[in-house]
Amino acid sequence: MGKMVGKQSMRFETRPVIVSEGSVVGPKEGAGPLGHCFDTVWKDEKNGAQSWEKAESQLVQQSLMAAMEKAGLCKKQVRYLVAGDLLNQLTATHFGVREFGVPFLGAYGACSTMGLSLMLAAALVDGGFADYVAAEASSHFCTSEKQFRTPLGYGSQRPLYATWTVTGSGSVIVGAHELPRKQGRRSVRICGATAGAIVDYGVKDAFNMGGAMAPAAAAVLLAHFQDFNRSPQDYDCIYTGDLGYYGSELLCKLMEEEGFLLEGHYRDLGTLIYSNEEQDTHGGASGCGCSAVTLTGYLMKKLRSGKLNRILFVPTGALLSPLSTQQGESIPCIAHAVIIESSGEREER
Amino acid sequence: MGKMVGKQSMRFETRPVIVSEGSVVGPKEGAGPLGHCFDTVWKDEKNGAQSWEKAESQLVQQSLMAAMEKAGLCKKQVRYLVAGDLLNQLTATHFGVREFGVPFLGAYGACSTMGLSLMLAAALVDGGFADYVAAEASSHFCTSEKQFRTPLGYGSQRPLYATWTVTGSGSVIVGAHELPRKQGRRSVRICGATAGAIVDYGVKDAFNMGGAMAPAAAAVLLAHFQDFNRSPQDYDCIYTGDLGYYGSELLCKLMEEEGFLLEGHYRDLGTLIYSNEEQDTHGGASGCGCSAVTLTGYLMKKLRSGKLNRILFVPTGALLSPLSTQQGESIPCIAHAVIIESSGEREER
Repeated sequence: MGKMVGKQSMRFETRPVIVSEGSVVGPKEGAGPLGHCFDTVWKDEKNGAQSWEKAESQLVQQSLMAAMEKAGLCKKQVRYLVAGDLLNQLTATHFGVREFGVPFLGAYGACSTMGLSLMLAAALVDGGFADYVAAEASSHFCTSEKQFRTPLGYGSQRPLYATWTVTGSGSVIVGAHELPRKQGRRSVRICGATAGAIVDYGVKDAFNMGGAMAPAAAAVLLAHFQDFNRSPQDYDCIYTGDLGYYGSELLCKLMEEEGFLLEGHYRDLGTLIYSNEEQDTHGGASGCGCSAVTLTGYLMKKLRSGKLNRILFVPTGALLSPLSTQQGESIPCIAHAVIIESSGEREER
Repeated sequence: MGKMVGKQSMRFETRPVIVSEGSVVGPKEGAGPLGHCFDTVWKDEKNGAQSWEKAESQLVQQSLMAAMEKAGLCKKQVRYLVAGDLLNQLTATHFGVREFGVPFLGAYGACSTMGLSLMLAAALVDGGFADYVAAEASSHFCTSEKQFRTPLGYGSQRPLYATWTVTGSGSVIVGAHELPRKQGRRSVRICGATAGAIVDYGVKDAFNMGGAMAPAAAAVLLAHFQDFNRSPQDYDCIYTGDLGYYGSELLCKLMEEEGFLLEGHYRDLGTLIYSNEEQDTHGGASGCGCSAVTLTGYLMKKLRSGKLNRILFVPTGALLSPLSTQQGESIPCIAHAVIIESSGEREER
């Protein structure tokens, strides 16, 4: 078996290791059901910065620093950084890391960015091009609402199916070798990935991200199952990034039509981070930060402790721009699937 | 020698091949000194599209189709597409390729994007993850002016050091193997790359892109020479992306201070595409499209015919956003260096 799998997948033969991870979130994410999982929870959305954009840059910095510190690596030891965010020209990321001095590869996949950066980081390590690569993604509720929807000060009403953009950044260090093993901590490895193509089902309502993205998630799952000859039951759980309540329901229907029952092996990360009843977040969570912080804060703990053995991490992205919406265009979407395994229990078949 | 070279470089041991290339430009680029080099020259900037953004999406489509046709490949045979542009959320690219069905990896490096996409495409092929990967970048004068500066209708005056954004898209297909060799055509290969870190020298004038980017170009060149133990004289020519007249002069000075004389082994692609005297383009050319179309239209012909044997292709990017400029921020910049060789004359030392 080579590194090219099926039509659009890669196998990482050396199984690159997630040597460490960092997560920083805002107050609303900290008050949610996963609040105890994150490294740092901010007390307010600005954290003393002069603007929301500068605050988001701080999120980027802090999660990367957290991951590097846990790995015992300094900036000079990180060979490449693959990262991105939702802002025009990746503003939060560029300004957040401009003083790091780490060779930088900018990635844009809207809310699928953590899947894209993780896949590229693993490919660079598995391909022998790097010993340590950092992968990161971030989003911020206030910068996103301002850019994609309406200024917060307007107090616009949001439809019930609208999702709430996560304020947070998640980082991982992907390495060729495991750190000296800590007591009881399992090794977590990236074993393969399926890159998605753009799918546009004609949805034009920019609040209905979940509905727009579900077909892209379905397409990459179908490609993944075919390429690796697997089914949903081969995974402890498949986690989509931020389809929310409505989008994840639609995904289950779409997959059922194709003969795959996700039930019992599927959760959407956008439905886990907030308590909808108490926090009034409507359709669930979204944003690059959603899958990034749930991976680095929540899922990694379950993988390291052995509660999860093999997952498929499927961040989903809506590739619209405010301009394309104004010009009456529909929403092109994408999703990437990354196989993550907790080592020692189940082997690649 | 392994695939990791020095601190921030990669060696592509299998020397992936540029199997084909495509270039599409607007009328002003067609009327310039390189006009005869491009596959397609549009008669006007819109080419019948309803908006400038849709026109830029057409550029993306046409240059990719041209590259695929020359390679004799259909869309299904291209395993991954790495691409990006200057527009918010990569609008031109996403809408240009949404119907292609090719697994898509979005890259953002401002005007350095062609270097980023080419480097990632070569790494994916050299790493064994793909047989054929397309790399593309585009820009459009009208979409860029509208987004980054002022609406064209205002008729704002531009300072003499301002550069002119290229309307054009360049694509290459990077492959593991050469096509059946055409008569007299040499094989052109990607042998290595140096990824740049972000450099910010505090320039705040968004018209002075060349001045802002020159230090980033110098930084990646210094890293490249150190990593590969080379000097400017090891290359027939080093081509920066779009520093323009003022930026390229500054780069030569910066490099001279570091002990490297570029003279006779250096050109800036932004000074080649327009005739400044006749076309009134002021500081030279810029935009993702500048390095993309000069590579695919002009340099590839010289490489294929043997007029150039080994070049260093160094697209440069200014990672500002209109918002960061409004907030009084300086301009973070980046550059990536890619070694491209015409096979059979000089071997990797």
